[in-house]
Amino acid sequence: MTANLGRIVIDDIRPSTPRGHPAKAAVSEAVRVSADIYKDGHDVLAAQVQWSGPDGKWSAAPLRELGNDRWEGVIEPTTVGRHEFVVEAWTDAYATWRHKATVKLEAKQDVGLELEEAARMFQARQGEVTEESGDLLEEVVRSLRDQSMSPHDRLAPALEPEAARSVSGPSGAPDWTESGPMPLWVDRERALVGAWYELFPRSFGGFRGTIHRLDAVAAMGFDVVYLPPVHPIGRQHRKGPNNTLAAGPDDVGSPWAIGGPEGGHTAIHPDLGTVEDFAALVDRAVELGMEVALDYALQCSPDHPWVSEHPEWFHHRSDGSIAYAENPPKKYQDIYPINFWPESEDARVALWEACKEILDVWLDRGVRIFRVDNPHTKPVAFWQWLIPAVQQEHPDALFLAEAFTRPKVMAKLAEVGFSQSYTYFTWRNTRQELEEYLDELANGRAADYMRPSFWPNTPDILGGPLRNGPPSAFKQRVVLAATMTPSYGIYSGYELCENAPFSDANEEYLYSEKYEIKERDWDQPHSLAPFVTRLNDARRRHPALQRLRTIRFHHTSNPTVIAYSKRSDDGADVVLTVVSLDPHNVQECTLSLDLAHLGIGWHRSFEAHDELSQETFTWSGPHPYVRLTPDQVAHVLHLRTGPGDGPP
Amino acid sequence: MTANLGRIVIDDIRPSTPRGHPAKAAVSEAVRVSADIYKDGHDVLAAQVQWSGPDGKWSAAPLRELGNDRWEGVIEPTTVGRHEFVVEAWTDAYATWRHKATVKLEAKQDVGLELEEAARMFQARQGEVTEESGDLLEEVVRSLRDQSMSPHDRLAPALEPEAARSVSGPSGAPDWTESGPMPLWVDRERALVGAWYELFPRSFGGFRGTIHRLDAVAAMGFDVVYLPPVHPIGRQHRKGPNNTLAAGPDDVGSPWAIGGPEGGHTAIHPDLGTVEDFAALVDRAVELGMEVALDYALQCSPDHPWVSEHPEWFHHRSDGSIAYAENPPKKYQDIYPINFWPESEDARVALWEACKEILDVWLDRGVRIFRVDNPHTKPVAFWQWLIPAVQQEHPDALFLAEAFTRPKVMAKLAEVGFSQSYTYFTWRNTRQELEEYLDELANGRAADYMRPSFWPNTPDILGGPLRNGPPSAFKQRVVLAATMTPSYGIYSGYELCENAPFSDANEEYLYSEKYEIKERDWDQPHSLAPFVTRLNDARRRHPALQRLRTIRFHHTSNPTVIAYSKRSDDGADVVLTVVSLDPHNVQECTLSLDLAHLGIGWHRSFEAHDELSQETFTWSGPHPYVRLTPDQVAHVLHLRTGPGDGPP
Repeated sequence: MTANLGRIVIDDIRPSTPRGHPAKAAVSEAVRVSADIYKDGHDVLAAQVQWSGPDGKWSAAPLRELGNDRWEGVIEPTTVGRHEFVVEAWTDAYATWRHKATVKLEAKQDVGLELEEAARMFQARQGEVTEESGDLLEEVVRSLRDQSMSPHDRLAPALEPEAARSVSGPSGAPDWTESGPMPLWVDRERALVGAWYELFPRSFGGFRGTIHRLDAVAAMGFDVVYLPPVHPIGRQHRKGPNNTLAAGPDDVGSPWAIGGPEGGHTAIHPDLGTVEDFAALVDRAVELGMEVALDYALQCSPDHPWVSEHPEWFHHRSDGSIAYAENPPKKYQDIYPINFWPESEDARVALWEACKEILDVWLDRGVRIFRVDNPHTKPVAFWQWLIPAVQQEHPDALFLAEAFTRPKVMAKLAEVGFSQSYTYFTWRNTRQELEEYLDELANGRAADYMRPSFWPNTPDILGGPLRNGPPSAFKQRVVLAATMTPSYGIYSGYELCENAPFSDANEEYLYSEKYEIKERDWDQPHSLAPFVTRLNDARRRHPALQRLRTIRFHHTSNPTVIAYSKRSDDGADVVLTVVSLDPHNVQECTLSLDLAHLGIGWHRSFEAHDELSQETFTWSGPHPYVRLTPDQVAHVLHLRTGPGDGPP
Repeated sequence: MTANLGRIVIDDIRPSTPRGHPAKAAVSEAVRVSADIYKDGHDVLAAQVQWSGPDGKWSAAPLRELGNDRWEGVIEPTTVGRHEFVVEAWTDAYATWRHKATVKLEAKQDVGLELEEAARMFQARQGEVTEESGDLLEEVVRSLRDQSMSPHDRLAPALEPEAARSVSGPSGAPDWTESGPMPLWVDRERALVGAWYELFPRSFGGFRGTIHRLDAVAAMGFDVVYLPPVHPIGRQHRKGPNNTLAAGPDDVGSPWAIGGPEGGHTAIHPDLGTVEDFAALVDRAVELGMEVALDYALQCSPDHPWVSEHPEWFHHRSDGSIAYAENPPKKYQDIYPINFWPESEDARVALWEACKEILDVWLDRGVRIFRVDNPHTKPVAFWQWLIPAVQQEHPDALFLAEAFTRPKVMAKLAEVGFSQSYTYFTWRNTRQELEEYLDELANGRAADYMRPSFWPNTPDILGGPLRNGPPSAFKQRVVLAATMTPSYGIYSGYELCENAPFSDANEEYLYSEKYEIKERDWDQPHSLAPFVTRLNDARRRHPALQRLRTIRFHHTSNPTVIAYSKRSDDGADVVLTVVSLDPHNVQECTLSLDLAHLGIGWHRSFEAHDELSQETFTWSGPHPYVRLTPDQVAHVLHLRTGPGDGPP
């Protein structure tokens, strides 16, 4: 005989991950918990979710049935760290009885036994409740047994809501069943919501110069300043401008060729400044309400100290040389990949610990966000160990995966611990591509644990409509990124509409900042900085834009215009974004709005306030007309229903 | 440090079930095993599946990549019983090297190190192989190191298939990774393929009379004769004809009101015969190549011996009476449901064992197939215990679930052990309904463990187009059932086109055989018996019709004509079925055949031989014309390509 068989099936619990790693949520996020719940027969069930965080206190929230045996409830974690939740279900004896008794009474069948059974049910609870409730229960029992009254009257007090409450709940339910504990990692809010700005500090004269630039970055409304690697750069096989093989003596090299005589991943490039300068940068960012994110790129230049100190951490060729990075026929002689599985288990342990120690150093220096370079070229098992190990000590540490790789690998990295992921946004340009991709990100299985971050550009990627593109294209792509996902970022220069591609062969920039210092005129009149500022301001003021899963696409009569709305967790804030995908021509359309999702009655007029242009439109019905131009590429519309001012 | 971290991700393995219960296969069925397999970086992977059955011997089959990191292979279990399979993956060092070396050679890069690395790789294998292979390896190594030849010539012998084979395989791969063991229950073929015929033995004068009828049933080509309960029938509250409440003294009652003074679930109704008569029936069925299936209906009439012997196995009301079945306001006073979770754990264990003992008795009497009545009104946990317990002793025992209930409950019962399930077929009538439903059954997640059985009618269900329907409707529905799913069944009387509904309020038959004895004229001239015989004959001769998962729908120009093809596991047998869904009118259409799925070249003509009419059509191209009438409702077409007789 099998022991402890569950009497109620509780199945397919979400949020969850395929292999039991924690699902993800952020503090103050409303997390929908759902499960298949059913049992044999016709009993009425009840269910709830209990959850607990690092403080060990348990809270409960009811689940309600959505149909097709699916139940759902909402929990709102308030602290950072590892949580778990448990789904519980039981037969609601009261509701089951109530259904039976009222149906029989209606059919004029005898309910004598039902009345007595209820009397016993209420009586059994009397021992468990307060005196006041006890009086109520006594009254209910007396009525149920009062043969001088009609069955209808005898039943009435037992049907009152207060009576129902007194006998509901799992207490004493013989088939009370609970799921196993489900892990949920709760991050601070920045894991879910944030506007990132990437810049190369050397183009601003190092950390001290960058500190001066921070005011402008903060004024644009960014939350995170992300720096490419700040470490010494190798000399051997250093790359010259435009990724040429022979660097001149003054060429600065790629920051991703990490390590030189001055040190490796914990050292700072002397041209950027000192540890104190870095601390000043971090402090100034905090003063401005921002924080600094650092690159975590686990690879070495041939001059990295590890190469001589730990040759066992690298791949060796048959002639004894260390293997540089290759993807034949391409060669990257300035980079030695790390061998994450050296033959000796001791060497592996030492290497993995050394990789963690790098993070420990930067965590000590106040960094809490790491943008991880090419995590998909390192073992999944490494991240699966590293990230939880770091977050156990620093639950506020966040990791953004630069995993521009196959979909399953990207999702698996998120599953084993990454807080955020770069995405395929750069390669999703048409309305259909964007709608399908957002649907997958917001509603797909991986939405329980993968948080997308949309980047219109990176130092590696000048893509699609931005290549030789007009300012309107830059506006369109940044509106999409900033309003589709709660987390997004741009690489500096975007606001100046830098659009020169290196060639048609790849997506690199011409004169890429990866290989040289760039000086820019930030104050040029056509800068998109004011536009970006308005976008980030709208993101901050609208909780609707700080969530992903509520996204809903609305049909438009013109395939080059895309429209989507989002709601805040409490439904009070609704933002409708309409974007033209054509950078060159005027595009007009009528929308077909799903008014129910927008919380607007069919017969009411409503106001749509554009957070970009500050115009306010008064619309009525589901088919407003919209006209977008290369100058005005989008509306980011805060929807408000006026009080009773709609047509009848 | 985490121990035993897998270096390769092996994920989402199928076939599998949501909660770790065994997936299902049948002996001689080609089972597709698939998994997501990937690792970091660019190495070329290899993978295989190893499987083992009750004999403990392991076999292996290779997996190949389908794209998007999905790998697939095929295993063919040959014995009945519990199997397990393990997916294994490793870096194919040879293929990885080969890719690198050949690309570099093509790009005219230096391959000196690659040649030496290959020499070492081949050399390392010399210790592990036979002498003959050893000679080959020595030759390869000599060539790789022969500096007098060009790199191209040095490489050539190492690229030969025989050389490749000698260094492939998981042996010595440092990142060799295996999945956990995946359980697979292998049934005998009848679990997957079979034509069932349901009959009430009392309408043939009991078991002896039924034995006479078996010749005709076998002649129609059926594999299984399924009998409703054969036990004593209760007297208290016995139902009269047409489910009336007051039975007369001669009324026979419902066979599902099980139990009387003569005994319960292990006894035989005296009017049907003796244990010896039953044995004779079972033996005669076997002689005719059929087998007998029995009903397993866990409920009791008020006269069942358990009611007095084990009152603790039933639900009690507040007045001490035993609760009869109710679904308010409906009452079923002739049935006492069993309480599968009595308060005492001892009572529960005794009850469950008693339920199993019923099966043991009938297994002893030679029954191996049980059609289970309303399993969804008994706890899932009960079946989860019962079926594996029975199959451990009798791996050839099969259970068909009559779970006409919600989709998730139906799937869960299949998951925990049922061999087959009745389905929603009866309520799927339009082309869209049928196509969507078959797609779900053949390709949905539950296809790994739920085997559908299609029944156009049952004693409980005279549905849809059959109600007052013409013979053409009966032909259409039985063609669909017999050709869509490998397992199907009809309830006797179907071939006589019995079409009189009890009312519009439910799907019952008028003068249902459930409540009275029926005498029929089996030899009437308009019987569909010859039609059913041809159908069953086609099913037996065509392996394509014995599989579900290969089904593919083809577009037709007329929405009331449905067309679908199936292939045998080896692809050699292809059957295309075209059915009109209109019982009243002639319907014409052109098909849009997916010729690739049919294994037919675009420019070839092919023969389509109708197994129902014995006509042969010669078609060319994907758009043949089809005309169906109320007389000729369908084609079941065996497709054959002639040798070289197509247009150029």
